[in-house]
Amino acid sequence: MQSANVLIFNGAGRQMELVERELPAIGPDEILVKNRYTTICGSDLHTFCGLRHEETPTILGHEIVGEIVEVGKRHSGHDYDGNTLRAGDLVTWSIFSSDPQSVEAQRGMPQKAPDLFKYGHAQVTKLDTFHGGLAEYCVLKKNTTILKIPDGVPLDVAATINCAMATVSGALRLAGELKGKRVMITGLGLLGVVCAAMCKDAGASEVFTADINGDRLLQSLDFGADATFLLKHPNLTDNAEIQPGRPVNIDIAFDMSGAPEAMETGLASLAVGGTAVWIGAVFHARNVMIDAEQVVRKLVTIKGLHNYNYQDFAYAVDFIGRNHNRFPFDTIVGKEFGLAEAQQAFEYALEYKPLRVGIRF
Amino acid sequence: MQSANVLIFNGAGRQMELVERELPAIGPDEILVKNRYTTICGSDLHTFCGLRHEETPTILGHEIVGEIVEVGKRHSGHDYDGNTLRAGDLVTWSIFSSDPQSVEAQRGMPQKAPDLFKYGHAQVTKLDTFHGGLAEYCVLKKNTTILKIPDGVPLDVAATINCAMATVSGALRLAGELKGKRVMITGLGLLGVVCAAMCKDAGASEVFTADINGDRLLQSLDFGADATFLLKHPNLTDNAEIQPGRPVNIDIAFDMSGAPEAMETGLASLAVGGTAVWIGAVFHARNVMIDAEQVVRKLVTIKGLHNYNYQDFAYAVDFIGRNHNRFPFDTIVGKEFGLAEAQQAFEYALEYKPLRVGIRF
Repeated sequence: MQSANVLIFNGAGRQMELVERELPAIGPDEILVKNRYTTICGSDLHTFCGLRHEETPTILGHEIVGEIVEVGKRHSGHDYDGNTLRAGDLVTWSIFSSDPQSVEAQRGMPQKAPDLFKYGHAQVTKLDTFHGGLAEYCVLKKNTTILKIPDGVPLDVAATINCAMATVSGALRLAGELKGKRVMITGLGLLGVVCAAMCKDAGASEVFTADINGDRLLQSLDFGADATFLLKHPNLTDNAEIQPGRPVNIDIAFDMSGAPEAMETGLASLAVGGTAVWIGAVFHARNVMIDAEQVVRKLVTIKGLHNYNYQDFAYAVDFIGRNHNRFPFDTIVGKEFGLAEAQQAFEYALEYKPLRVGIRF
Repeated sequence: MQSANVLIFNGAGRQMELVERELPAIGPDEILVKNRYTTICGSDLHTFCGLRHEETPTILGHEIVGEIVEVGKRHSGHDYDGNTLRAGDLVTWSIFSSDPQSVEAQRGMPQKAPDLFKYGHAQVTKLDTFHGGLAEYCVLKKNTTILKIPDGVPLDVAATINCAMATVSGALRLAGELKGKRVMITGLGLLGVVCAAMCKDAGASEVFTADINGDRLLQSLDFGADATFLLKHPNLTDNAEIQPGRPVNIDIAFDMSGAPEAMETGLASLAVGGTAVWIGAVFHARNVMIDAEQVVRKLVTIKGLHNYNYQDFAYAVDFIGRNHNRFPFDTIVGKEFGLAEAQQAFEYALEYKPLRVGIRF
């Protein structure tokens, strides 16, 4: 039996340990993948810091791209788009697996099915270890949606497809038609800049970004933002490219920040008939205060989304295939580390807050 | 020139005055209607009490049914469904008129077009008096949507079509498919009981009603409610038909009350993927407190609606044509008055809070 390195996370505040584990024989419906690149997502950082709790020991990392090593005998041998899957193919896979026949999946929410399994979030057990991005291999379980990486997409960009990009795709689905729309995006982390680029790609007439961090606002200009707004300290901006205040008459206000203030600003900026799409609020915060009379009189819609569905995942792959050269996605990883240095990678991410740090295998 | 009685409202706390005014010659795009029945809506009561402000002098009353007296020369001579309009026809008309070519109307929100005019809400001027329900006649302006009253619908029920019933129709449009859905309705005034009946008619599997008023809950059982929940004092119910607490796993939570507590209860009751539709919040109240993390993790949608569009209005007329005998709509008017007694009608409505009081001409 071959063995491989895995990085075990035992809880916040404890050093992760690099250990060797035997690679299991894969089941007939499974696929064995050699991880090629993993990016560390904001929720990995939350778990690392103890802001979020997962059953330990676990292997963190769910934004992964890998290369197929072996396809199980009973697997269809095709990806979600119908392409044949062979050893050596570079693939991305959904952050979750779940029964596509469940009521939830049939209603467009496979990420909420009762038998849900999530990569990079599960407890390591004797029989089930290889299910995270901070390991040399990953076993793709039955009912994992797989997609081949389009030609030319760099590994570090491809790694972000199955979380950041697919979730933003879901946000765009909820927003509906974007052609000719005025869009506002609060929270310019990776989801925010991907959202700016996707809205531009989908034909939004104007894309406004808003954040409390001026550097991130400036960065968003490279990802399709037409104008940027500094929140919280609206009078302190001395950069001509950053406006004080907030935009008005917005058709779609996306929130990627999870900050109640940002969601409130987004709602206040909406035009009559406008829609707010919230995907950032995946952590505990104070309640958002909503003037229901304004929601009613302005015919406002608010939609929340957690994770994404098959269609969103496929949209993300298609988007990045068409746009990886149009926007500077090669700048999203601020620094790269090896698997053995992953502890430093997390510490670097927390200290310097780049859009992503990467683990290259 | 013929003259007619109109009841002038000069502001909260002042007696309304019954005066005679000359009936104007109608314009070529207009229709003259003899009012047959007006019901007093909650927002009329708000204006009467000073909780809402309209430019005075005005003529209150916008839930009206009337009989065509004269059709202007340039009018198409057809209602929204294509039926020919003739003198003597009993008709209902949209609470508003606005340009159907406006951007807002083209986007399904004619009630928010810039040239909006609303019956029962406008200032009386020398040249423009007959635009409210508390007058013997009403002049239907250009771009007013008109529909003939289906055979057999009593006048007091027909009067409520163009506000209460059409607005609830809009709420159902926002809710989407109702077949097989678990529905909760907070606020069992007229909109609430109409909503219960409409949801039942649309195939909802279970209709739960919730209110702080036990009598209204019991009344909702006649309008299609399958179970009722007493809010606020959940332990004080001694009626076997009223449950304490609130329902769970709700697909659609309609709020007709405008009470922040009710909207919060509705949101808490939603299943994953559930939708809250708010139409009651048309007055000032404290902010609704929303846990955005729950909205995101549960994939919740919140939709606000004020008034309604053409399609909603037509749905209401069709609904009541099919259902006026199925549910006890003949009980919604608690007491009837003549136009000269309208002041007492308002006072009665405020004191006894029936679903509606009526003015019969």
